[in-house]
Amino acid sequence: MEEIMSELPAAHAAGAGAPAPENDAKARMRAALTAELPEEIVLHAEEDLRPFECDGLSAYRRLPMLAVLPSTIEQVQAVLRICHAHDTPVVARGAGTGLSGGALPLESGVLLSLAKFNRILDIDTANRRATVQPGVRNLAISQAVDHLGLYYAPDPSSQIACSIGGNVAENSGGVHCLKYGLTTNNIVQIEIVTIEGERLTIGSPALDSPGYDLLALMTGSEGLLGVIVEVVVKLLPKPELAQCALIAFDDVRKAGNAVAEIIKAGIVPAGLEMLDHPAILATEEFVHAGYPTDAAAILLCEIDGTEGEVADDMARVREVVEASGATDIRISRDDVERALFWAGRKAAFPAMGRISPDYYCMDGTIPRRALADVLIGIGELSEQYGQRVANVFHAGDGNLHPLILYDANQPGELENTEAFGGAICRLCLEYGGTITGEHGVGVEKIDQMCVQFPSAELTQFHAVKAAFDAKTLLNPDKAVPTLHRCAEFGAMHVHHGQLPHPELERL
Amino acid sequence: MEEIMSELPAAHAAGAGAPAPENDAKARMRAALTAELPEEIVLHAEEDLRPFECDGLSAYRRLPMLAVLPSTIEQVQAVLRICHAHDTPVVARGAGTGLSGGALPLESGVLLSLAKFNRILDIDTANRRATVQPGVRNLAISQAVDHLGLYYAPDPSSQIACSIGGNVAENSGGVHCLKYGLTTNNIVQIEIVTIEGERLTIGSPALDSPGYDLLALMTGSEGLLGVIVEVVVKLLPKPELAQCALIAFDDVRKAGNAVAEIIKAGIVPAGLEMLDHPAILATEEFVHAGYPTDAAAILLCEIDGTEGEVADDMARVREVVEASGATDIRISRDDVERALFWAGRKAAFPAMGRISPDYYCMDGTIPRRALADVLIGIGELSEQYGQRVANVFHAGDGNLHPLILYDANQPGELENTEAFGGAICRLCLEYGGTITGEHGVGVEKIDQMCVQFPSAELTQFHAVKAAFDAKTLLNPDKAVPTLHRCAEFGAMHVHHGQLPHPELERL
Repeated sequence: MEEIMSELPAAHAAGAGAPAPENDAKARMRAALTAELPEEIVLHAEEDLRPFECDGLSAYRRLPMLAVLPSTIEQVQAVLRICHAHDTPVVARGAGTGLSGGALPLESGVLLSLAKFNRILDIDTANRRATVQPGVRNLAISQAVDHLGLYYAPDPSSQIACSIGGNVAENSGGVHCLKYGLTTNNIVQIEIVTIEGERLTIGSPALDSPGYDLLALMTGSEGLLGVIVEVVVKLLPKPELAQCALIAFDDVRKAGNAVAEIIKAGIVPAGLEMLDHPAILATEEFVHAGYPTDAAAILLCEIDGTEGEVADDMARVREVVEASGATDIRISRDDVERALFWAGRKAAFPAMGRISPDYYCMDGTIPRRALADVLIGIGELSEQYGQRVANVFHAGDGNLHPLILYDANQPGELENTEAFGGAICRLCLEYGGTITGEHGVGVEKIDQMCVQFPSAELTQFHAVKAAFDAKTLLNPDKAVPTLHRCAEFGAMHVHHGQLPHPELERL
Repeated sequence: MEEIMSELPAAHAAGAGAPAPENDAKARMRAALTAELPEEIVLHAEEDLRPFECDGLSAYRRLPMLAVLPSTIEQVQAVLRICHAHDTPVVARGAGTGLSGGALPLESGVLLSLAKFNRILDIDTANRRATVQPGVRNLAISQAVDHLGLYYAPDPSSQIACSIGGNVAENSGGVHCLKYGLTTNNIVQIEIVTIEGERLTIGSPALDSPGYDLLALMTGSEGLLGVIVEVVVKLLPKPELAQCALIAFDDVRKAGNAVAEIIKAGIVPAGLEMLDHPAILATEEFVHAGYPTDAAAILLCEIDGTEGEVADDMARVREVVEASGATDIRISRDDVERALFWAGRKAAFPAMGRISPDYYCMDGTIPRRALADVLIGIGELSEQYGQRVANVFHAGDGNLHPLILYDANQPGELENTEAFGGAICRLCLEYGGTITGEHGVGVEKIDQMCVQFPSAELTQFHAVKAAFDAKTLLNPDKAVPTLHRCAEFGAMHVHHGQLPHPELERL
């Protein structure tokens, strides 16, 4: 743990630093960029750079050396070609809603904003595809095809604000990814610009594309392999009917087991979420969704499809959760009630803001059968670290979002929170899970990558990176740690749920 | 076209050649391998090597220098380490059912058979996963979990024989991949051995894994990046009910449009297949499935799910196809009749063997809306090349399997067939499709890759290859052509459906 704590203050301090002076490197890069690009799209003044100093992981802040706001693919190509020629790092940024610091700029680098790439270029109903620019907001796609009875399935909580380029870079999920998959399952083709400024088409609108699957490789690569300038997404028909069941339990373990049983029964809910008692209390007080405040845990189970399908599946859900010991089951009677059931879940994060000055949203994934054990383990860690935690899970996927409540103004509390978060990551790995579900690694979890991956696999990652970006100029020091960094961190690789040292088995 | 024809005879001639003599290189490799491995697993005599001379693309035959049949991962590591040290190419082979020559050996190389890796290692019902060795047959997985109400979804026609390692290497599909996805959507983790003999775990049993998506990258990489030694597959619950509709049309165009309309209506059939008139005639004569022999085309549309879901969706299928001009609709009354409907489709390939001495199975993919146009285009090409063709499609996916009928004993007919096949590939590309749906590139379509991909993308493929296999020892000269080869072929890259030269627009 020492390593995490000794590193973090330095990283945080970067944010507090004064803006870099208009030094030689900055002047040189600015001249090189404005020689080929309109001067007004190359931002250099501190007040113009300030909006780019952080993304959704606001504990980390840094001003970029310069920011560029291109509006054409040719301009993106020019920016990358120039950065490559000048050995200057580049961080691409969409809407900046990421939660792991993936868009945190570098003081010695260029911040490349894709904000102006905000047009939907084509909607092809026969093939159910839309071609969009990377800066298009996630929800805007569904809104644009709503009148056609279609929608874009991945729905991260930030979908009002987050943009599709960032969704691809982070392989975003959402409440509905249990049934409809992550971003990687919902896109078919992208255009990228390489660090050399070359434009590549990756993937194909057809079923499958020969050659290596670079589309999946790019998806979730956190901006380390190329800059996405166009995306072709799949559109799905809106289901005829959707119903949500609100299911209460007097015991977290029973709720966790019910999740496993629902899946085991072969039911594929459109969403299957779980809130524990602290999360229920905080959200109910905030939005009055009608959650039972005496429950130890609730499940929200949404079923969509045709009328017959929903009726059949809902009956089976009822059967399974009754057998699992549910104390109360309410099924939404109409879309108004369904929206109300979801309102609590969707407001869970802001609700925490009302009961705690700060909260830290974790994001780990575990096999579903371990849900109850990990929940209980998190409770034990909460006592050990002396900090409150509320749990809001994409339970069906085994994707956890423990929210650690803290007060950044209390000395040491942020550091303790991050240590607690690290312990949760290791707990997920112990149970055969991963350190991130859908929020990415970024700067936040880069050290935890040393715990998840042995050096042979990290070496392979770096070899793949070199195949795209030999100079490591694209979003450096994020997502994949160097072996050197892991050695410094004192890499504790957990394999097949076994920690290498027995004394670490219960952190 | 000249280039294809001038190259093919040479490739074919390789098959006719005499076995390589026990030359120095062979003796040296044999000594190196037997120094570390049991002598009986290193095959060197011609009669022992003969079974490995070809895969399902039997027009291409070559004897390997040596064949090795390891039974442990350590032995696979040793084979690859030794080959790497001796700069000797290696071709890995599963069941040898591939249709694009991906397992064709090299006369100067080692053939690595995974046949002994045929055990199911673990079945995890709570998480619906099975851990299997690569030599396990596709169907054997579903059989092993049948009593648990589960199955493994991808179902290539060869599923009785083909093995899961090969399925991963080729990203195999099948009748049900419309609803349940290709292999890449149905596996969560693999173990590979690199050409250096290093063992890597790729992917994760959890929802998502951080780092680059090497699992998707490996899937469909046709043995060029590593040797798969273990696979964790997803298992699905068997649907409560499945029904199949047999739908007849008096016009191919109406049938093609009906496919697009079914998908547009938001129905996701478990399978949606199409047979044209020659295919109907040949199969009906063979298996008497009750297909209407006067129809221009039939669709087989399978719906699975709960009873309510099947009833709802089948009613909507009926509505849509009636509006599209179907002349006859029969819905299977029970599983016996359903099996009968499918029997024709499943026997389509052998049925061709009864009406023609030889047939060449093509595999292209097009956007669904182009189905009718491409079918008509294939008919025109059939007249132009003077050869009969029967069409059996995974219509819902836009995945075509035109079967070109020929007689290898007629001089020039094989070459004409392959030229015809090349023209079909280009036709698919013209309509925004790809040159392969699920059979891979292998040796068969390597030149067509030059047509599909511009050099920038091929260069990126080679860079990725180098990140895994810098010496290009793994399955060389397959799947991804060198730029040199494309230059010799006279690369005709088709981008966005536009051929670069107007005179090529209608080959």
